[in-house]
Amino acid sequence: MRGNTFGKLLSITSFGESHGQAMGVIIDGVPSNLEFSLTELQADLYRRAPGKVKGTTARNEPDQAKVLSGIYQGKTLGSPIMVMVENKNQRSQDYDKIKTELRPGHADQTTIDKFGIRDHRGGGRSSGRETLARVIGGYFAKLVIPKVEVTAFTRRMGELEFKEGGNITAPYYLPGIADDEIAEYLTQLKKEGDSCGGVVQVVINHCPKGLGEPCFDKLKADLGKAILSIGACVGFTYGEGEKLAFMRGKVATANKGNFGGIEGGISNGETIKLTVFVKPTSTVGDKAKEGRHDPCIIPRMIPVIESMVYLTLADHYLRQKAYHQ
Amino acid sequence: MRGNTFGKLLSITSFGESHGQAMGVIIDGVPSNLEFSLTELQADLYRRAPGKVKGTTARNEPDQAKVLSGIYQGKTLGSPIMVMVENKNQRSQDYDKIKTELRPGHADQTTIDKFGIRDHRGGGRSSGRETLARVIGGYFAKLVIPKVEVTAFTRRMGELEFKEGGNITAPYYLPGIADDEIAEYLTQLKKEGDSCGGVVQVVINHCPKGLGEPCFDKLKADLGKAILSIGACVGFTYGEGEKLAFMRGKVATANKGNFGGIEGGISNGETIKLTVFVKPTSTVGDKAKEGRHDPCIIPRMIPVIESMVYLTLADHYLRQKAYHQ
Amino acid sequence: MRGNTFGKLLSITSFGESHGQAMGVIIDGVPSNLEFSLTELQADLYRRAPGKVKGTTARNEPDQAKVLSGIYQGKTLGSPIMVMVENKNQRSQDYDKIKTELRPGHADQTTIDKFGIRDHRGGGRSSGRETLARVIGGYFAKLVIPKVEVTAFTRRMGELEFKEGGNITAPYYLPGIADDEIAEYLTQLKKEGDSCGGVVQVVINHCPKGLGEPCFDKLKADLGKAILSIGACVGFTYGEGEKLAFMRGKVATANKGNFGGIEGGISNGETIKLTVFVKPTSTVGDKAKEGRHDPCIIPRMIPVIESMVYLTLADHYLRQKAYHQ
Amino acid sequence: MRGNTFGKLLSITSFGESHGQAMGVIIDGVPSNLEFSLTELQADLYRRAPGKVKGTTARNEPDQAKVLSGIYQGKTLGSPIMVMVENKNQRSQDYDKIKTELRPGHADQTTIDKFGIRDHRGGGRSSGRETLARVIGGYFAKLVIPKVEVTAFTRRMGELEFKEGGNITAPYYLPGIADDEIAEYLTQLKKEGDSCGGVVQVVINHCPKGLGEPCFDKLKADLGKAILSIGACVGFTYGEGEKLAFMRGKVATANKGNFGGIEGGISNGETIKLTVFVKPTSTVGDKAKEGRHDPCIIPRMIPVIESMVYLTLADHYLRQKAYHQ
Repeated sequence: MRGNTFGKLLSITSFGESHGQAMGVIIDGVPSNLEFSLTELQADLYRRAPGKVKGTTARNEPDQAKVLSGIYQGKTLGSPIMVMVENKNQRSQDYDKIKTELRPGHADQTTIDKFGIRDHRGGGRSSGRETLARVIGGYFAKLVIPKVEVTAFTRRMGELEFKEGGNITAPYYLPGIADDEIAEYLTQLKKEGDSCGGVVQVVINHCPKGLGEPCFDKLKADLGKAILSIGACVGFTYGEGEKLAFMRGKVATANKGNFGGIEGGISNGETIKLTVFVKPTSTVGDKAKEGRHDPCIIPRMIPVIESMVYLTLADHYLRQKAYHQ
Repeated sequence: MRGNTFGKLLSITSFGESHGQAMGVIIDGVPSNLEFSLTELQADLYRRAPGKVKGTTARNEPDQAKVLSGIYQGKTLGSPIMVMVENKNQRSQDYDKIKTELRPGHADQTTIDKFGIRDHRGGGRSSGRETLARVIGGYFAKLVIPKVEVTAFTRRMGELEFKEGGNITAPYYLPGIADDEIAEYLTQLKKEGDSCGGVVQVVINHCPKGLGEPCFDKLKADLGKAILSIGACVGFTYGEGEKLAFMRGKVATANKGNFGGIEGGISNGETIKLTVFVKPTSTVGDKAKEGRHDPCIIPRMIPVIESMVYLTLADHYLRQKAYHQ
Repeated sequence: MRGNTFGKLLSITSFGESHGQAMGVIIDGVPSNLEFSLTELQADLYRRAPGKVKGTTARNEPDQAKVLSGIYQGKTLGSPIMVMVENKNQRSQDYDKIKTELRPGHADQTTIDKFGIRDHRGGGRSSGRETLARVIGGYFAKLVIPKVEVTAFTRRMGELEFKEGGNITAPYYLPGIADDEIAEYLTQLKKEGDSCGGVVQVVINHCPKGLGEPCFDKLKADLGKAILSIGACVGFTYGEGEKLAFMRGKVATANKGNFGGIEGGISNGETIKLTVFVKPTSTVGDKAKEGRHDPCIIPRMIPVIESMVYLTLADHYLRQKAYHQ
Repeated sequence: MRGNTFGKLLSITSFGESHGQAMGVIIDGVPSNLEFSLTELQADLYRRAPGKVKGTTARNEPDQAKVLSGIYQGKTLGSPIMVMVENKNQRSQDYDKIKTELRPGHADQTTIDKFGIRDHRGGGRSSGRETLARVIGGYFAKLVIPKVEVTAFTRRMGELEFKEGGNITAPYYLPGIADDEIAEYLTQLKKEGDSCGGVVQVVINHCPKGLGEPCFDKLKADLGKAILSIGACVGFTYGEGEKLAFMRGKVATANKGNFGGIEGGISNGETIKLTVFVKPTSTVGDKAKEGRHDPCIIPRMIPVIESMVYLTLADHYLRQKAYHQ
């Protein structure tokens, strides 16, 4: 009820403060007898790790996943899977300076208002570091729906816009723009103590028909909640999204693809398209220059967004399986 | 688990097909001893009723609410409140023509895929008529948080755009445009067998601080789910939304208002702003001319959006009350 | 959260006060395309109806089920099924006398303490009449698991004890004792303004293997909750129950049947046995003589107990189906 | 949905197999700013530890609680609290012998049936060791309702029966019988490769009025589920329990205490009494002599039962707080 659990038949329960001893997650509802690979889980975690991208954070978090339950001899047992990452490199002294500063657009003040107490060493539960739990959960969701492919990429990062047809590659996932150009752009932002947001596109292929429920748990609603639960996300649309708001009905219905693979809240078996709006990171000014803060969070959000989508789809897949003859 | 229940501490469970015998809702979690007014509930229902708007549907649904439990001598008992509306004026023969036509962007085909059966007389559970349940729920949510004010209005309806400073009045809720002009616009659309979508803005005043949870149940995520669960909604943003995606961090953080009253997923006591993108209705062509279909669903969606917001806020209000000393 | 919903994948949400306008239930999670028979549902309801048993209540409740959603052309649609029974014969004036009397062992005082308001015309939500909702739910649960057979019978009613090998027949379900003898016993009790409790036995045949979860949702725990949620039930055991508490391990484990078809909280495919302890009804003295009160509730509880068991098993059946390859 | 979470507003999510790397729990919903004492938590854990009781297990489990989140500077943060205990002393070779033996009354066979895979090194999720999670949860539940006192004691252990008025002391909690006598009894049982069950009584003092809901979530139902979710528990009654089944209504209602502090499913502010029936442990014969198995589980169950009761009461306390003005 405090909202640290996501999902119904496949659920993740997240724990940990950014500067506490560990972050982690219990994944419950993974069917038994699925093959587990620590190497692949670790690879997923590495994708969201900081420090790989020029201009972005230099924090040296090793993020070694420890799997402490639910796996036996390389297979899922059907019991809850607990995975955690120890916070080895806490260096909370770096954060002492911001102890009294309350960043606009951040959880600093609202956490105090709500709880009457706050771990001032960092974002606590509201830290981007919490998203580790989601990426770990996403790995297991993929085991449940191995044929589904979720791919997120950057459409826009500040002033930089993607080019149709470009390759989607790490670390920036921004097709058609050279890595050097992006790195330079981000380095410059950081030098100015500034930050930027952008737009992320998600493409889902091979999603089975029939996922989502007709009333409140429409697939679009649950995908929206999943993505809007990520810190920096300020908007969500599906299909042609806001363009649909400006389209006539005859034009809109002439191409089923405008509805992005979801009709009446239920997947129709075609490609699903989602768009995510990301705000600029809240730490700006001198803090942004010195600290270990990202001038743009998108490169690290990409795997988190994908994970939340996988979790939502896997949960609905199990729900549909329960009711289908 | 079939997604017909919304909310945790204050929940609504919706039932009914558009052409079945009745639509209705059980509202559970309303505290006891609150004053109930059937007149006010009926007024809320009337706001979403069809037939008030030129160019829109002429269906003559009386929508008389019957309160069958949970109220005694004008007060809530704390027990589940069941309210239903009988479908008196079903005229399902009108729908016979569309029995075999599967409208793009609508639940027609996906319902068959998912359930292997469909009430072909109408939208069934996916009908806009289901939103009656939400408006009834919203009435009771207002009893729980009487000081909170949620106001939705039309920013854009097809080519028509609102004017800052205009009054927000029924039936179009489109400030600054004369009713006649709107009526003509919609009549023309209907004549052409076409439809339009648009943009709705929601303003929440007097929302208490501290609503929303830091992780998955962020207020923005639960509001997003609430609104995206409405049929025609194709996108949701809060605060400056997509504009934030194009803003530098220094600019964004210079004005706390850009984050629309929600920081770190938790309400900060200031005005909350939401934006909703609405697609054009799916019925177009000759069907749209003859039938009882709306060329634009926005006027009828406004009270539904407000209700879903009230329900979300009241639920979070009770959650916060449970944990707060 | 107010506990008017039971079950997860198959759930019932109950509404109605005993002297309000109607009692009813939304059943959610019934798979689509199952054949529905109003005649059979009505027969189930008739089994729990008052007035069939000598010495027991003479209330003339017709209990006509109205199915207002979720069924189309004799089949389940997969959407929520709402069924209600109107309270036609309320005669609340009979209850005026007990308006100020608070019966020990009854919800009278605790309802006031908890809600600060009470529908003094009758038991309100705590009335035995609420169990209508459970019997209706049980009918639909049977559609989900048609092979499973749940049979409850009376082991003991006050001083009367069942005889092994007797037939289990309505209205008393007390094998081996002549109907006349039971009727006389109950008539005498009523004359004295007294009441009795007893013991009910439940036998479950053809329950599939693998229902129940290893930790908190053990089958025995969920069956226990289901049955203890019935008003007059004061105890629950499974298998040899309390006898096991007095048995040595060697003796107990020599016969797997002692564990009543549940091992480690999970059904093992064998016959499941449950025992239910029922307290005497709370209305005694002059009120019990005049009023429409049962001197023993067991005959009317039998179908309610069966229904709660069916609901629990069907819910676990769907859960297992979701996870099983 | 796999039943590893217990509670709604205050919930525990348990993880870990008995012979995996760690057992633990996430406690979610503990209000912020409550004082935490590792010493007291450790003392609670020590109460359920094996090896303190003659004749019972000699396993040397240190059970050091590691608190990895949710606590900061000795206070609860309001965020999820993760506590785990590493399984240092696994010695799974001891269990190799029982690899192929499937104990009646145990989860061995049903786990294979349900999951198609089993960690044969021990009970896995069905091990008594899982109850660590519950005792840890119980510690935090006590912080939420500090005035409530839950005391469990042994009424009967095999042939030994408690004496009214005796002191309730560790490690046997069997009032009026000398520790030596009990130790000798258990030692003899073990020598014979046998085991025994018994009866536990729970007394709850200072429980606030108004806990429990009128319909499915009656306090007795939720307490029943809580206790029946413990492995060896085969029965649950409240108040005078089965005696009520043999009592006339006039006698029963003459003393409110017969209903054990719960009326209409809701606490009435008086002392609540529960009775728990415990079966003999399933490991008998030569295995019981050699292994590290308890001839009677009751001494170790006492703190587990108390914890489950605390958790249930604290959850209902928060629920009531949410709705009460």
